[in-house]
Amino acid sequence: MCLTPLERAAKYAVRSPRFAKVTPNHLAYFQSVLDKPCSTSQRKGKMLTDAEAIAPFNLDWMRQVQGSAPAVLMPTCTAHVSKILKYCQAERLAVVPQSGNTGIVYGSEPVHDELVLCTHLMNAKPVVSKNTMSVEVEAGVILQQCQEACAKEGLLFPLMMGSKGSSMIGGNVSTNAGGIHFARYGSMHSNVLGVEVVTAKGDVLNLMSTLRKDNAGYDLKHLFIGSEGTLGVVTRAAIQLYPYPKSKQLAMFRLMNFESVLELYQLANSHLAECLSAFEVMDGESLAMSPAKEVPYERTSKNDVFRMGRDFTSAYFCVLVETNGSNEEHDFDKLSGFVEAAQTKLGDQLSGGGQYEPILSQSASQTEQLWALREGVPVHLSSSGLIYKYDVSFPTDKFYGIVEYTREMLYRQHKMNPDEVIVVGYGHFGDGNVHLNIIDLTRSHGKQLDAALYPAVYEYCAKHDGSISAEHGVGMQKRDYLHLSRTKEAIQLMRDLKTMMDPNGILNPYKVLPLE
Amino acid sequence: MCLTPLERAAKYAVRSPRFAKVTPNHLAYFQSVLDKPCSTSQRKGKMLTDAEAIAPFNLDWMRQVQGSAPAVLMPTCTAHVSKILKYCQAERLAVVPQSGNTGIVYGSEPVHDELVLCTHLMNAKPVVSKNTMSVEVEAGVILQQCQEACAKEGLLFPLMMGSKGSSMIGGNVSTNAGGIHFARYGSMHSNVLGVEVVTAKGDVLNLMSTLRKDNAGYDLKHLFIGSEGTLGVVTRAAIQLYPYPKSKQLAMFRLMNFESVLELYQLANSHLAECLSAFEVMDGESLAMSPAKEVPYERTSKNDVFRMGRDFTSAYFCVLVETNGSNEEHDFDKLSGFVEAAQTKLGDQLSGGGQYEPILSQSASQTEQLWALREGVPVHLSSSGLIYKYDVSFPTDKFYGIVEYTREMLYRQHKMNPDEVIVVGYGHFGDGNVHLNIIDLTRSHGKQLDAALYPAVYEYCAKHDGSISAEHGVGMQKRDYLHLSRTKEAIQLMRDLKTMMDPNGILNPYKVLPLE
Repeated sequence: MCLTPLERAAKYAVRSPRFAKVTPNHLAYFQSVLDKPCSTSQRKGKMLTDAEAIAPFNLDWMRQVQGSAPAVLMPTCTAHVSKILKYCQAERLAVVPQSGNTGIVYGSEPVHDELVLCTHLMNAKPVVSKNTMSVEVEAGVILQQCQEACAKEGLLFPLMMGSKGSSMIGGNVSTNAGGIHFARYGSMHSNVLGVEVVTAKGDVLNLMSTLRKDNAGYDLKHLFIGSEGTLGVVTRAAIQLYPYPKSKQLAMFRLMNFESVLELYQLANSHLAECLSAFEVMDGESLAMSPAKEVPYERTSKNDVFRMGRDFTSAYFCVLVETNGSNEEHDFDKLSGFVEAAQTKLGDQLSGGGQYEPILSQSASQTEQLWALREGVPVHLSSSGLIYKYDVSFPTDKFYGIVEYTREMLYRQHKMNPDEVIVVGYGHFGDGNVHLNIIDLTRSHGKQLDAALYPAVYEYCAKHDGSISAEHGVGMQKRDYLHLSRTKEAIQLMRDLKTMMDPNGILNPYKVLPLE
Repeated sequence: MCLTPLERAAKYAVRSPRFAKVTPNHLAYFQSVLDKPCSTSQRKGKMLTDAEAIAPFNLDWMRQVQGSAPAVLMPTCTAHVSKILKYCQAERLAVVPQSGNTGIVYGSEPVHDELVLCTHLMNAKPVVSKNTMSVEVEAGVILQQCQEACAKEGLLFPLMMGSKGSSMIGGNVSTNAGGIHFARYGSMHSNVLGVEVVTAKGDVLNLMSTLRKDNAGYDLKHLFIGSEGTLGVVTRAAIQLYPYPKSKQLAMFRLMNFESVLELYQLANSHLAECLSAFEVMDGESLAMSPAKEVPYERTSKNDVFRMGRDFTSAYFCVLVETNGSNEEHDFDKLSGFVEAAQTKLGDQLSGGGQYEPILSQSASQTEQLWALREGVPVHLSSSGLIYKYDVSFPTDKFYGIVEYTREMLYRQHKMNPDEVIVVGYGHFGDGNVHLNIIDLTRSHGKQLDAALYPAVYEYCAKHDGSISAEHGVGMQKRDYLHLSRTKEAIQLMRDLKTMMDPNGILNPYKVLPLE
């Protein structure tokens, strides 16, 4: 059954009776566990119960879901986590693992009175090895700190994303985080070499390894990568690193239609191949809220943008193409050749009749400016009105269909006014990962949009070989739509796995799997 | 408990009483299933029961394990496979899935009277998409045919290995096959976008997808990649493709010691970075059996090689460095720069006092010759005597230790004669994947070697952060050593998974998981 966000909220108002309520006795036990110092760092764990101190742990990043955990448990070592989960499984106490809490699908905060198991104090200095080109890192280390530790040794950590300053490795691994360099370096399933996990039963599963090839039995780490903390808590990970790129190049293109974007992408693969590191697309409408001075060509006026969006197709598309490589001269040469080939092949589709020539960044500061345009898009959109964000994916040739569909549905079927409600699409084209955003500029159409968008957008994904979740996971937000992207046999197997590994369902309840 | 191969053979002589014997009634049922034409191709399946026809399906590639399957079932579609497995699960009939049957760990042939479920007739033409840069391919398609279908569209299939002419996609996916381009393009876990699987219970699990990013629930495909057909039968897969390289370059080096190999590898990563596609190492001893005319410099004489092997360290190391890229001029430029840097940094360690200069291949035919040297190594070794082959992996800095350890053990501890038994190491250095080979030139020390090598070699792996199986899997050959690479908690979870997904244990029994 599909619910609107409001119906869903009502449904989740019901706390599952299978879980025990946390008592002072339980808390005393947790305190006794956390008071034992970690055997390596000698640091004691912590328990927070003060209402003010635990408030931030009870709230999601989007400020939509507010839980009421009575305590936040902050272990400093795997042994703490193991003891806590063994006890919680036996006592039927619900637990939500939390690291950076930057997710946007309501996956890492309590829905009711689950205990928060917070990894913040598990943050020993990452151990980088040049020999094995890998890093071993604890769950509570901030992504950016990990990136910097690797860069110091001349190595690149493969994950890069906007939330790098606050998201943490434990969550990155548990949610199979994607980001802007996914197309080049691959997913966490590709890059995680080993993990240490505490299962929902409290068993420590040591699957740590820095080996590249290791086919000794079932590769269990994949059970914990992307299962959003519902099967186990990732406490450590070993992750593959890459040579740090010595050269970064960037070009920006303005294209007349989506077909040209697809052609440009194929040219990029052919000309840039091994050094292509990002291919980001923004439709003209998604730039409408960005300050004109940030857009490096005469931007179509807001009204023009809206008028064109009304015809369902986009006014234009803006594309950022980035290369990462080991030789600046070679990379610049490749990128110039690519731009030339694009001009020859796409002609007026690309230049707008000579009005908009491609921009080949000439300096680090220009590169920064152009990336700022892309990074500014979600920021400017969010501040313009009530926003509905969808993180979905499609085969690349179907990347833009969902934006056109949503416009048609809202403007034609639901007679909404394109001057009040705009529909935009941007995202990681190389991964087929489109961020569909609907912005209610008047902040007054929420109820109508709720009814129109749910479950229509997700149903469109199902019908067009897409996924309801590209990189952000399922959490609580998408769990009742999971059947649109997964068959009933697949969902049954997920349930069987969950039941086998977490018999009392204590770990991150209300998330990922639909209620039965 | 660890067994020598002989003890193991005795143990496996016992057929599990839990399985029913195949009766004429069973065969009649299978025939009725296979007589229904596939709904898409209209092709009927086949059943072989003639002794001569089924003989090749009963024998492993190394001709070491000989089963006695009474029938080979050859479905043409997933519906056939589903009906067969549902029936076998209900009737407690043991089944071994088989595609190319090129594995060397005794994983894909019957041990006793298991039925063979052969995928050979599931071989529709691969569907290559330039838009999504992926191929959808059935289990029975031969690897090379799949590679060629992709190459026709200007795309590279990421898996490349010696058995390409006979191994098949179903087995490639089920065993997480590695090969020579693993370091560049990654594992099957990285490259498989979707699979269709029939579970051991006979349910069809449609996880097909060409999406790059898809975080909708647990990523179940990883359960079937590398589990060697013990949890389900892969019937189809969608696999990620890459731009076909326009330029391939090759260089060969001769180095005085292992430390220099490690330094050369770090230089290669720094200079070649994104275009490095292979870094293969052969020790001097592994070239001793290759015809002198194939070795492109004055080869150390056989006796000298053996004498040096007696000192445990190698006489010398030979390294092949390959690049794949999109621009010949750039790649050649990078490779030349790398060779120059290596000469400056490694000096005499590399040139042998000016005697052996690095070779930069000048033509496609020279490249072929140099690769032939590497590919000839296992062939020449195998034909020289009784051979013991180990496919193990280590962190790169510990790559060669196992060769030195094995020499010390055999020559010092077991007083074996280095003129009769030689110990060599070669392999995929970038993946830490060393092929340790022990060759009994007299073919008379088998019993002594059995006792000396098992379980000593695998125990060495365990003690030095290595894996008992790098790329060849576990099969029947390594199952009793699995505990050396995996903790008891991990093995228990593997067992729990197996029991949950295959309650009667009918699918590929006697393989991967140790007997309890």
